[in-house]
Amino acid sequence: MIRVEIIAVGREILTGRTLDTNSHWIAGRITALGGALGRIVSVDDNLDDISAEIASSVARGADVVITTGGLGPTADDMTLEGMARGLGRGLSLDAAALEFVRKRYELFFEQGYVDSKEMTPSRRKMAVIPEGGEWLSNGVGAAPGIKLEAQGTVFFALPGVPEEMRSIFEESVEPFLRKLFSGIVRLEESMATGIGDESILTPILKRVMKRLKGVYLKPDPKGFGTGVDIGVYISVRADDKGKARARMNCARRMLLSELESARRGSR
Amino acid sequence: MIRVEIIAVGREILTGRTLDTNSHWIAGRITALGGALGRIVSVDDNLDDISAEIASSVARGADVVITTGGLGPTADDMTLEGMARGLGRGLSLDAAALEFVRKRYELFFEQGYVDSKEMTPSRRKMAVIPEGGEWLSNGVGAAPGIKLEAQGTVFFALPGVPEEMRSIFEESVEPFLRKLFSGIVRLEESMATGIGDESILTPILKRVMKRLKGVYLKPDPKGFGTGVDIGVYISVRADDKGKARARMNCARRMLLSELESARRGSR
Repeated sequence: MIRVEIIAVGREILTGRTLDTNSHWIAGRITALGGALGRIVSVDDNLDDISAEIASSVARGADVVITTGGLGPTADDMTLEGMARGLGRGLSLDAAALEFVRKRYELFFEQGYVDSKEMTPSRRKMAVIPEGGEWLSNGVGAAPGIKLEAQGTVFFALPGVPEEMRSIFEESVEPFLRKLFSGIVRLEESMATGIGDESILTPILKRVMKRLKGVYLKPDPKGFGTGVDIGVYISVRADDKGKARARMNCARRMLLSELESARRGSR
Repeated sequence: MIRVEIIAVGREILTGRTLDTNSHWIAGRITALGGALGRIVSVDDNLDDISAEIASSVARGADVVITTGGLGPTADDMTLEGMARGLGRGLSLDAAALEFVRKRYELFFEQGYVDSKEMTPSRRKMAVIPEGGEWLSNGVGAAPGIKLEAQGTVFFALPGVPEEMRSIFEESVEPFLRKLFSGIVRLEESMATGIGDESILTPILKRVMKRLKGVYLKPDPKGFGTGVDIGVYISVRADDKGKARARMNCARRMLLSELESARRGSR
C-alpha cells in the first residue's frame, strides 16, 4: 500500500482567506490514478512548522509527499528551507534551476509582466534548493518545482498558485505516480439503497465489507430531511482491472440482496 | 499566543470527493474572533490516524483542538473512539447525551425523516463519549457535539455535515473562543502598492515587519500577467482596539512612504 501525503504551506489557508482547492484537486488526481492519499496538513509560513511536518511524514513512512506553496521570491516563502531543515540537509544554489529562473524573468520582462529582468537576491532564492534535489520546469510561472528523494520518501515541492501547481503536477508528478501506482486498479460507483435510515444501513455495509476484501462502502449522509433514499458509495481496489471489476460486481450484488432483505423487513 | 488546531476526519476529503469547506469556514471564524489557527490536518476514518493526531496536538501544546466529522452512527464514524485512545481515556455511555439522541430520533420520526424511533446500537453509539467529556446540543442533526478538557487542551468534536457543524460551533464553540481571545484584537486590511514586481516589494515588506511589532505583511501573488499592481495584505494584532488601530495606522503610513520611495526609484 503506497502512502501519499500533502503538506499545504501558507498562512492564507489558516486565516480562512484562501480555500485550499489545491489539496482537493491533487486528492482527486491521486484517486483517479488508483492511489490513496493518507493525509493532508496545512501549516503556517514558519520554518519550525514546515520542518516538523516534513520530518513527521518521513517518520510515518510516507512514500510520496507533495508540498504546495512557499516557493516564490518573498520573505515568507520558506518551504525549501523548511524541507532542508526537516531532512537535515543543506541548501545550495542550483545552476540549472538558476538558469531556468533567469530565462523566465527574461521572458516575463519581454512580455511586459515585470519591470526588470535583473536577478535580484529574492529571485535567486528560488533556485536555492535542498541538496540532492532536482528542479522541475514550471510552464506557467518563474518558481521551479523540486523533486527530492530522502530517507525512502520522494518529495515534490510545488508552487501555491493553482495554475503553476497543476502545470508541474501534470508534467512531472503524474507520470511518476502513474508508474508507482501501476498494478493497482481502483473502481468507484454510487448506488441508491431505497433505505432512508442510516442505523439500518450501517450493519448491512459492515457485513458486506467484512465478507469482501478490497471493498470499501460508505453511506452518503446529507443530514436529515433530504428524502428517504441514502446513497452508498462503493470503492474497490485490486491488482488488475479484471479482478477489480469482478470485485465490484460481487459487492454490488451482495449489497442489492442485503438491501432487498432489509426493505422486506425480513431482518 | 493561543494555539488553535483543526483535525478534519473523513476519507471523502482524502479521496477528493469532498472539498473541506468546514475547515475554511472555521478558519475564517477564528480569524474574525481575533484568534490564529495554527494547523489543519485531514485524516482518514482510521483509529490509528485519528488518535495519533489527537496526541500530536497535545504534544505541541495546542490550547484548543476542533475536530470535524466522524460523530454519526455508521461504522466509519470513529472520532470519539480515536480521541479517547489518543488521550488514554475510556469511553462510556453518557445518559444525558443518550437522552438528547433519543429525543432527536423521536422528533425526526414524527417529522417522517426516519422510519423508526428505536434506539438501535448504531444510534446509541453517538452517546458513547470519552470519559470527562460533556455533550453539546446539535440544533440540526442527531449527533451531539463533545467538549473535553485533557492535558491542558480543550477539544471540541463537531459533526462533518456543514449545517450541523456550524450550528454547534455558533452555539457552543464561539462563545468559548470569544472569552478565550478577549484581550486580543486583530485588524486586517488590504492596499494597492503601485508595484508589479514582487522582488522589489519583498525587501520593503521585510523592512516594515522588522521595524513594527505585531504587524504581518504579505503580498497577494496572483501569478504573472495580472497587471502591474500587487496588493499587500496587512494584519495587525494588539492587546486592545486602540493599540491595534494605532499599529495599523503606523504600518500603513510606513508602507506608503516606502512604496513611494521605491516607485520614485530613489532606492
